[in-house]
Amino acid sequence: MAPLLVTFAGGTSGSWEVERIEAVSGDSLPWAKRVAVVEGREFRPPKGSVWALRGVTSNERYAGVADRAALVARQQPLGRPRASRAALIPITKTSAWWDMTQEERLEIFAKRSGHVRIGLEYLPDVARRLHHGRDLGEEFDFLTWFEYPAGATRAFEELVARLRETPEWSFVEREIDIRLVRTAGGA
Amino acid sequence: MAPLLVTFAGGTSGSWEVERIEAVSGDSLPWAKRVAVVEGREFRPPKGSVWALRGVTSNERYAGVADRAALVARQQPLGRPRASRAALIPITKTSAWWDMTQEERLEIFAKRSGHVRIGLEYLPDVARRLHHGRDLGEEFDFLTWFEYPAGATRAFEELVARLRETPEWSFVEREIDIRLVRTAGGA
Repeated sequence: MAPLLVTFAGGTSGSWEVERIEAVSGDSLPWAKRVAVVEGREFRPPKGSVWALRGVTSNERYAGVADRAALVARQQPLGRPRASRAALIPITKTSAWWDMTQEERLEIFAKRSGHVRIGLEYLPDVARRLHHGRDLGEEFDFLTWFEYPAGATRAFEELVARLRETPEWSFVEREIDIRLVRTAGGA
Repeated sequence: MAPLLVTFAGGTSGSWEVERIEAVSGDSLPWAKRVAVVEGREFRPPKGSVWALRGVTSNERYAGVADRAALVARQQPLGRPRASRAALIPITKTSAWWDMTQEERLEIFAKRSGHVRIGLEYLPDVARRLHHGRDLGEEFDFLTWFEYPAGATRAFEELVARLRETPEWSFVEREIDIRLVRTAGGA
């Protein structure tokens, strides 16, 4: 799969209505009524955009062979009709994180924090796509987009709470939690 | 270190004069008389540019803790006055490479190909900086820039020949080898 550039434009258009924007660490983002999720490099944010966050899906960085097999077996695609809830979680990690070698980062991500193992417990309800922004010069290193049915809202809260307690999260210097509801009327 | 965007603009200006452009695998690039190496996101290629290749220095992806210590102890910075020769080697790897997990890529890069170990033998003469283009939507996945003294030219040829014989190189689908000489009169 070639890398896919995705723009999350917060403003007055888009098929996702914002429920809340919460700063978990560091500064928040300005309020926006709706979010448009647009794939492709040609996209320019529409008039009325308050912010536009960009990231690119890329090759896997940490998941091992066994992790990937488990993910592929259980993960669901985006766009399921019953997945009417979404979360957009922009994150920036500290320079201490980025200054480590891959080997050291993997140790914290996988062995000490069990990031993939925790995530797997919430499949197949929660679908997820990770976008990388750091090499694009973006404000956030990562934009993770989740989609889940309304009935999985409590489980999703548990998932993010568990991840935030891991050693990996001590390297998060900015995190915003944006929750959304899919609307039929959105552009 | 924050990622640094670097543009290599081939055309009629720049302080590096092109000696040769050789297609090692796949299509070549058009001839250019000079190459300008420009850092920063604001740069637009000058008039007269025949091509402009972009990449970003990023966090390390494969070097282990011991590798990095050895590299840091021996590697030299770019811009040494005596390093009057340079090579710009744009590379694109196959989709089979990118579809592997990090674990599988690391196995080929490090254990089977000894990429860092081979490179270390040519330090400190050869200075090197790697730039990633794939996530930017660029034509080449990697742009590696090398600088070395004229007296290390033969050693440098040996280095690239050895790397091209490794199992890692069976995943290279396009490679161009551009050799350059630093000129006093360049812009």
